[in-house]
Amino acid sequence: MKKILIANRGEIAVRIIRACKELGIETVAVYSEADEEALHVELADEAYCIGPRLSTDSYLNFSNIISTAKLTDCDGIHPGYGFLAENASFAELCEEVNIKFIGPTSDAISRMGTKDVARETMREAGVPIVPGSTGIVADEHEALEIAEKIGFPVIIKATAGGGGKGIRIANNKEELITGVKITQKEAAAAFGNPGVYLEKYIEIFRHVEVQVLADQFGHTIHLGERDCSIQRRMQKLVEEAPSPAITPELRQEMGEAAVKAAKAVNYEGAGTVEFIFDHINNKFYFMEMNTRIQVEHTITEMITGVDLIKEQIKIASGEKLALQQDDIQLNGWSIECRINAENPARNFMPSPGKVEMYMPPGGFGVRVDSAMYTGYTIPPFYDSMVAKLIVHADTREEAVLRMKRALDEFIIEGVETTIPFHFRLMGDEVFKSGDFDTKFLEKYDIMK
Amino acid sequence: MKKILIANRGEIAVRIIRACKELGIETVAVYSEADEEALHVELADEAYCIGPRLSTDSYLNFSNIISTAKLTDCDGIHPGYGFLAENASFAELCEEVNIKFIGPTSDAISRMGTKDVARETMREAGVPIVPGSTGIVADEHEALEIAEKIGFPVIIKATAGGGGKGIRIANNKEELITGVKITQKEAAAAFGNPGVYLEKYIEIFRHVEVQVLADQFGHTIHLGERDCSIQRRMQKLVEEAPSPAITPELRQEMGEAAVKAAKAVNYEGAGTVEFIFDHINNKFYFMEMNTRIQVEHTITEMITGVDLIKEQIKIASGEKLALQQDDIQLNGWSIECRINAENPARNFMPSPGKVEMYMPPGGFGVRVDSAMYTGYTIPPFYDSMVAKLIVHADTREEAVLRMKRALDEFIIEGVETTIPFHFRLMGDEVFKSGDFDTKFLEKYDIMK
Repeated sequence: MKKILIANRGEIAVRIIRACKELGIETVAVYSEADEEALHVELADEAYCIGPRLSTDSYLNFSNIISTAKLTDCDGIHPGYGFLAENASFAELCEEVNIKFIGPTSDAISRMGTKDVARETMREAGVPIVPGSTGIVADEHEALEIAEKIGFPVIIKATAGGGGKGIRIANNKEELITGVKITQKEAAAAFGNPGVYLEKYIEIFRHVEVQVLADQFGHTIHLGERDCSIQRRMQKLVEEAPSPAITPELRQEMGEAAVKAAKAVNYEGAGTVEFIFDHINNKFYFMEMNTRIQVEHTITEMITGVDLIKEQIKIASGEKLALQQDDIQLNGWSIECRINAENPARNFMPSPGKVEMYMPPGGFGVRVDSAMYTGYTIPPFYDSMVAKLIVHADTREEAVLRMKRALDEFIIEGVETTIPFHFRLMGDEVFKSGDFDTKFLEKYDIMK
Repeated sequence: MKKILIANRGEIAVRIIRACKELGIETVAVYSEADEEALHVELADEAYCIGPRLSTDSYLNFSNIISTAKLTDCDGIHPGYGFLAENASFAELCEEVNIKFIGPTSDAISRMGTKDVARETMREAGVPIVPGSTGIVADEHEALEIAEKIGFPVIIKATAGGGGKGIRIANNKEELITGVKITQKEAAAAFGNPGVYLEKYIEIFRHVEVQVLADQFGHTIHLGERDCSIQRRMQKLVEEAPSPAITPELRQEMGEAAVKAAKAVNYEGAGTVEFIFDHINNKFYFMEMNTRIQVEHTITEMITGVDLIKEQIKIASGEKLALQQDDIQLNGWSIECRINAENPARNFMPSPGKVEMYMPPGGFGVRVDSAMYTGYTIPPFYDSMVAKLIVHADTREEAVLRMKRALDEFIIEGVETTIPFHFRLMGDEVFKSGDFDTKFLEKYDIMK
């Protein structure tokens, strides 16, 4: 590949531009009218405005993006995460116009994106899944039959949902009957697909996910796990690798399951297989596969030394994956804090606006991925995540202390950020113990 | 240790404060009147002005520093590099007033600081030294006798010199006779010690140095080498680890020689044994030992994962070194560029002044150690190095490309810096080949 269009904005666009520069690949940035002053526009070799501030008109605008790629002679399009990253139709369009979509095939995206299909694919591949329905339930009567067999509580999931969207819990018969009907209606409206399926609701679990890499020739490896149990309203806030809850044996089992999952859809590129880890019973179940690079890919890079964005690009170029499973060694501990322009003291209310002063921390074991700078104005139209602060150290304890030190140094003036939240979290005894689950932030009010 | 005074300024003071914070140790900064707005003053728990801008009145002011340490109940003093770091009298004073000098004993400093004594100590310890005089030469007649025995050219070195200071080359009898007399006179004036000794002059060599760590119980290990052959007027500009010229066999030999050198003076703490590496004949010779942390310690940290400042502090606290020689694994490649406030297009003329905009690069494998910020004024009274840009990658080639990318992103406005020099160097074919010696920058004008 000689030239890549980056169909994204913010830190991930900057991250991809950096990888391209190091690979000697030219870059084309695209931006909405609200992003004229954005860092990715400044850093790319070329930059083109593709529409108004609304992402449906710009970052989700198929034809403007494709024609920009065509006009600038790009060989590939990197979608980053969010926006078009898991849009099978967009990937298909790229395939049709002969531009390489840097990610898996549209078929793999679609098979993993349709959650009941993904579930059945995993069942057939021998990847553990949570007990539940086989495919979509016809109606609330079939749902009830299944629920009574697997036992309450159950979780109703829209097959077109994912990432915490389109789900509802039912603790009894009544909740189930209403729940199925409401979820179907909501799913039809939100995703254009009313299909729902049922799973046994596992209430207490850790979110543990496995990074995989697969080339176009079927060679697939895993790069260890990430623990993303620190969530607020199902949105990840802090991730760490490895997981404090995973033994070497489990790591191997999960890794093998993740490779199986990827192979089942002929996966290509970087992907993440997310698991529900029932740490009380030491069992894990397939949750979903994210068929893209994730926000938290950084911490895997820190402990493995593998540049995942470069690997994505090399794979998309048709190169064979040079890494063998045995080459992957996990070194030390890495933690990422998502710095959002939100006020943690006011219920994480978004806080866009002008950054009067931006001064990232530095020194040993500290990495910052951000698109901010002094004088930058954070627009209110997009995701509130404005920086990722990543640390690496020998041990979890040292990494937590390093993160605390780095957060303390981080200066962002003019807008509120989640830095004070993270600083308190790093001093929290339960967090420091490593023994928590996805309900952690519901149970403990860190800001109190 | 509970509280440490940092007897330094700039990036190394910030580096030490960071390590202390991560270890839960309180910090006391000291500063000259010119450094009131310095970052180390801002980041430390406490900060005290110790004198006017001239370093002899402030950063070299024994009594003001010692009394500040006493008044603030510090257990230790970290001298950083430069200033008091290799001052045996200061270390002795610390010993007398019962404050731990974070570094070796005054005796070790003095034995390595007196270069002819160091040479003889190495000879006895079996560390290879360059053929030359045994100790100081009495006068030019004795010098001539030795020079004729070892053959011209020879190098005349002041025993109190070091780091490229107090040396002169003699190509023949006449140059030798005048040279000895002038060097003696200059050394008497500069160092208060007229003693000089002779060595065979090795013209073409690489500067390769080995990092060592030793605890108070004699346990001594080495952490691989650094190649510092990119120098201008004997001042290092770029360092890398490992060295492109060193084989695993040589690494082990040099490492063992460095450990011998350290043991010969009962060394304690972090130290560097510098070697002249005659890469044409594949032989190395002891150059000198730096009995302190060095500017370029960072690149060893990147490839070993060992936090050298934390190790210094732990050793000074009386802890046993937990690392064994076998624990030291070298991973990947690291390069450091010293960013100086100098104009490389105008013969590296110093360029102090106000930094109108400071924006360090970020992302995977990039580390910045600096004490700069937007709005900071670089005072003209001290060293011109204002930032260290360090990269880490799998291979040398990837590290060079990453450095180029990071240099390209680095924004420092308001003053001239060596960033353009480094950017050109990273694109230079000879540099990229890895095949060069300490004369590289004399032979090639990178800025042309």
